[in-house]
Order: sequence, then C-alpha cells, then structure tokens
Amino acid sequence: MTRPMVVRDPALPAAVTIYEVGPRDGLQNESAIVPLEVKTEFVERLVAAGLPIVEATSFVHPKWVPQLADAAELVARLPMDGAVPLPVLVPNERGLDRALESGVRHIAIFASATEAFALKNLNSTLDDQLAMFEPVVARARAAGVDVRAYVSMCFGDPWEGAVPVDQVVSVGRRLLDLGASQLSLGDTIGVGTAAHVQELVRRFEAAGTGTEWLAMHFHDTYGQALANAHAALQVGITTFDASAGGLGGCPYAESATGNLATEDLVWMLDGLGIEHGVDLSSLVETSVWMSRVLQKEPASAVVRALGA
Amino acid sequence: MTRPMVVRDPALPAAVTIYEVGPRDGLQNESAIVPLEVKTEFVERLVAAGLPIVEATSFVHPKWVPQLADAAELVARLPMDGAVPLPVLVPNERGLDRALESGVRHIAIFASATEAFALKNLNSTLDDQLAMFEPVVARARAAGVDVRAYVSMCFGDPWEGAVPVDQVVSVGRRLLDLGASQLSLGDTIGVGTAAHVQELVRRFEAAGTGTEWLAMHFHDTYGQALANAHAALQVGITTFDASAGGLGGCPYAESATGNLATEDLVWMLDGLGIEHGVDLSSLVETSVWMSRVLQKEPASAVVRALGA
Repeated sequence: MTRPMVVRDPALPAAVTIYEVGPRDGLQNESAIVPLEVKTEFVERLVAAGLPIVEATSFVHPKWVPQLADAAELVARLPMDGAVPLPVLVPNERGLDRALESGVRHIAIFASATEAFALKNLNSTLDDQLAMFEPVVARARAAGVDVRAYVSMCFGDPWEGAVPVDQVVSVGRRLLDLGASQLSLGDTIGVGTAAHVQELVRRFEAAGTGTEWLAMHFHDTYGQALANAHAALQVGITTFDASAGGLGGCPYAESATGNLATEDLVWMLDGLGIEHGVDLSSLVETSVWMSRVLQKEPASAVVRALGA
Repeated sequence: MTRPMVVRDPALPAAVTIYEVGPRDGLQNESAIVPLEVKTEFVERLVAAGLPIVEATSFVHPKWVPQLADAAELVARLPMDGAVPLPVLVPNERGLDRALESGVRHIAIFASATEAFALKNLNSTLDDQLAMFEPVVARARAAGVDVRAYVSMCFGDPWEGAVPVDQVVSVGRRLLDLGASQLSLGDTIGVGTAAHVQELVRRFEAAGTGTEWLAMHFHDTYGQALANAHAALQVGITTFDASAGGLGGCPYAESATGNLATEDLVWMLDGLGIEHGVDLSSLVETSVWMSRVLQKEPASAVVRALGA
C-alpha cells in the first residue's frame, strides 16, 4: 500500500489524539438510515483499527435525528466501560437521563458560538443555552461522567457571516467554567482558513485556556479541513475530530463534503511522523465497507485512492 | 456568495501567482475529448477570470495525448502575444518546432526527478533526459521564448517509492543550468506531506536556488494538496500550479482526484488575505460550465459548494 515518506517537523506535537465522530456526526448527516447491526459493527471496527475514542451516537430526539433513533439499543450493545471511551451526544437533561440510564460514561454537549445558530438550533439565546447546559454538565459530573462541549460555528455562521474570535473564546470559556473537560471548536460550515485557526487558538491561550483544553473540528466544505489541521498542529493542538471516510454531509451548505476524513488526517500525520495509533489499512477497509452499505462514494481522498 | 473571514498571517507572502494548468494538465488527464471551440472558450474564460498565466495545451504527439491533438489549431485561435502568457508544453525538439511555427512565446518542458519515471515516460535515463532537453531549451531561448521546467515525481514515485530530496534538487538545478526560468516541483502522485514540502524548498535554498525560481505543483490524490500549499507559503513559495475545478485525474494512481483545484486555493488565499487577482465567482462559473461539458462532478470542494 502506498504511503508517504516521513519528514518530521520538530516544531509539531509528537503525538495526537484522533476523536472519531463518524458513527455520530457522520451518520447523523447521511440521508440513509443504517441498521443497528451495522452501526454496532462500525463502532467495533473503528475501535479495532486503533481509534482511541469513538463518539458512538446521540440521544437527541428521534424526531430531529431519525438516523440515530436507536441510540439506547446501540449503547446496550457496546462496551461502555471498555478501554476506549465511547461518548454520546446529549442535547439536554432528558437526553442525559436516557444516557445515564444506558450506562454512558462520557457525554458531549452541542453549543453554539453565535446567537443566530443558538436561536436556529436550540430556539434560545446564548445565555439561555448556557443556562440550559448548566444542570446537564453538573449532573453528568456528579455521576462521574466526563463532558465534552462542542462549540459550533466558530469561524462563520450562515446567518451572521464571520464570527468574532473573541465571541468564540467567551462562549468556550463559559462552557469550561460549567465543568466541560474539553472544547471541540467547530468550523461547522467549513469557511475558516489557516491563519484564522491559529488566531483562534492563540486568543484562547491569551485568555488563559491552553491547548490541552481544545480540540479542533473541521469540515471540508471548501476544501480547507486538512490545511486547517496542519495550521492547528503548528499552534500546539493535539486533539482532532475526524470522520472515517469523510462520512457526513454539510448540514448548512450545498456541498458533498462534510467532516475532515480520518484517513486523510492519518495520511498527513504519518507523513509528519506524528503518532496517532490508528492502522490506516484497517480504517480504509472499514470505510470502503461503510461506503458500500451507504451506496455512496467515500468523500475521503485516501479511501478513494487506496480502497479501490 | 459565502466567503471566508480574512485573517492575515504577516509571515506569509503578500501576493502569489496562480499558474493555471486546467486546459493542459487538466484536460490531458480527462477521458473525454473536448471540442476545439470549448477549449478556446475555456482558456478565454480563465484569462477573463483574472488568471495571470494559463498553460493552454501541449505539442506532444497525438498518439500519446489524443485529448490535445488540436494544439496547433487552438494556439492559432488564442492571443499568444497578449498580456497573459499562454505557455504550451513541448516534449522534445519536434514539439518545439511545431510550437515555434505556431507563434508560441512561452513553453514548458516535462522532466522527471527519478530514473524510473524517466525510463517509463521518456524511455531514457536522467542524463539522457537532460541531454535531450538541452537543445530544446537553447533553441527556445535563442528564439526569445521563455522555458519553464516541470520536475515530476518530486516526493514519491510509483516504482521507486520515496524520492530523496537531494536528487530532486540536483535534477532541478541542472534544468535551471540549461536555461529554464522556473521549476515547477510536482508531487505527481500526491504522496507528499507538509514538512516534506518545506524540507524540499529549504534544500533548494541551501543549494543556492531561491524561492523566486520555484513553483509548486500539488496533486490531491491523498487529500494533501492544500495543506501542502499552506506549508509552501510558509517557506516563501509564491507561484502555485492549480487546475480550474480540480480538472484532471491522477495518471499513476487509482483515484478520482487530480490537480489542486484553483478555486480551493483561491479560497485559502482569500482567507489569508493574499493577493492573486482571480475573481472566484467567474472561475466557479467557468468550472461549472466545464463540468457540464465533461458530464462529470467537479473535484473542487469550492465549486461543489458554491456552484450548485
């Protein structure tokens, strides 16, 4: 199998954590509804391929995300106490109740960096959004459950346009203050570019939030995801969200491309000699299998090139 | 039309030259044969969109590249003395004869960085390749014609694997010594990653060849093209080859992705506040039109997102 020549950059981190979002963020944004058995095998294969953390599903109401209506059944089939954390998304306290009943040990909440998206997605203001998350985070932590906070629309917003960096920092820090252990800074519509990424990370650091609290979540809507990941590595980011095969469309733009593809990220990390623990061959096989299930060409360039 | 927020990086160049290769490298690697009228309009639209240089066609023998068999007719229809240079590829002295007869003012030659590809593509050794190009460059320059030299397989080679950086520098410098005015360093099979790109540029500089002599030519086979372009900007590269819509497959890998898409590069440059002179809307319209001619989805993420 073709692989890149390794040329290290001593200024970059020696190792990174790939936070796999394919089963949740990927499948949530695919039009097909995947059977429970396939979802179970998908998560198991991702864990077997070496992904150190795999977001498994979402306890959002099935009315909004019918693709993940089987969240409780899926969680019941998966090793929630295993060595590899399998977080689930919870939208609110009702979702948290269901997640805790199911034995979930790691949750993620989904916040907005902008007023417009808070209104559109949660029908609330930014302040109300944070007030709504306060008991979710508190109760989760009281139950010994770890909480990750997605911050969406960190670079641009379909309604507001460019999003001020300071606003993202402010929302992010309020989520950490509530008790979140990590922020996933999302370029939900894919409009960000490399210097913007670096500026956002630096502004968090200037406000006292180091890179150990930050993950980056890029979408490839305008082809920028991997260039942005490289830029993020350069400012010390060591956790990257990615989706096997590039699963998942872009919910707020007319585009065939969604999440940064895990395989394309792995290729870059391999070339840079950065450790990640993922077996690229197994991952490509998994994405080829999933693309057949979905009857759809994989979005990942690496999967298209190596999976033929 | 959605556009990125501009965040400048003062360490990057203030302006770059996009060397458009769609009509030659793009169409040469598409299976469809495009009518002469469409090719003419394609070049004209690219010039109208602000591309500062457009490689128009190739005087390679039609037996090898039937897609560009109408090179002389195309050149006859185009303003070869206009403000925008329209280089053509010439493979050898016979190609040069035809190009000079047609009134071409700028040519490009296509060299290999590796013995294996020199053998495969030219049926020659590296030394013989350079001996073959010597009279091509000398006669072109004597006629007042500028010569660009492509160096292919600069990062990896399907037969040799990883290509030593020093070998690329050596071949490149010999081409400059012959009289080439610019090297286009090609990642023909798309295996390179960011630090490898920077290492190659630095090694050229250490050997006395500054970035003003270098252009980068990336392929997106493994999704790395734009990350590599960002890495190249960071070491001072100011000329980038790109193909409108991402036209052109990858000749030596099973992949749907070919050249770096001009639109995706323009998006990144716009976000970084780097001048390039190209009107993105006109370019997207041109690529949408060409994708309809070819009856094929554009490879460019930006064209898919904005051109719908």
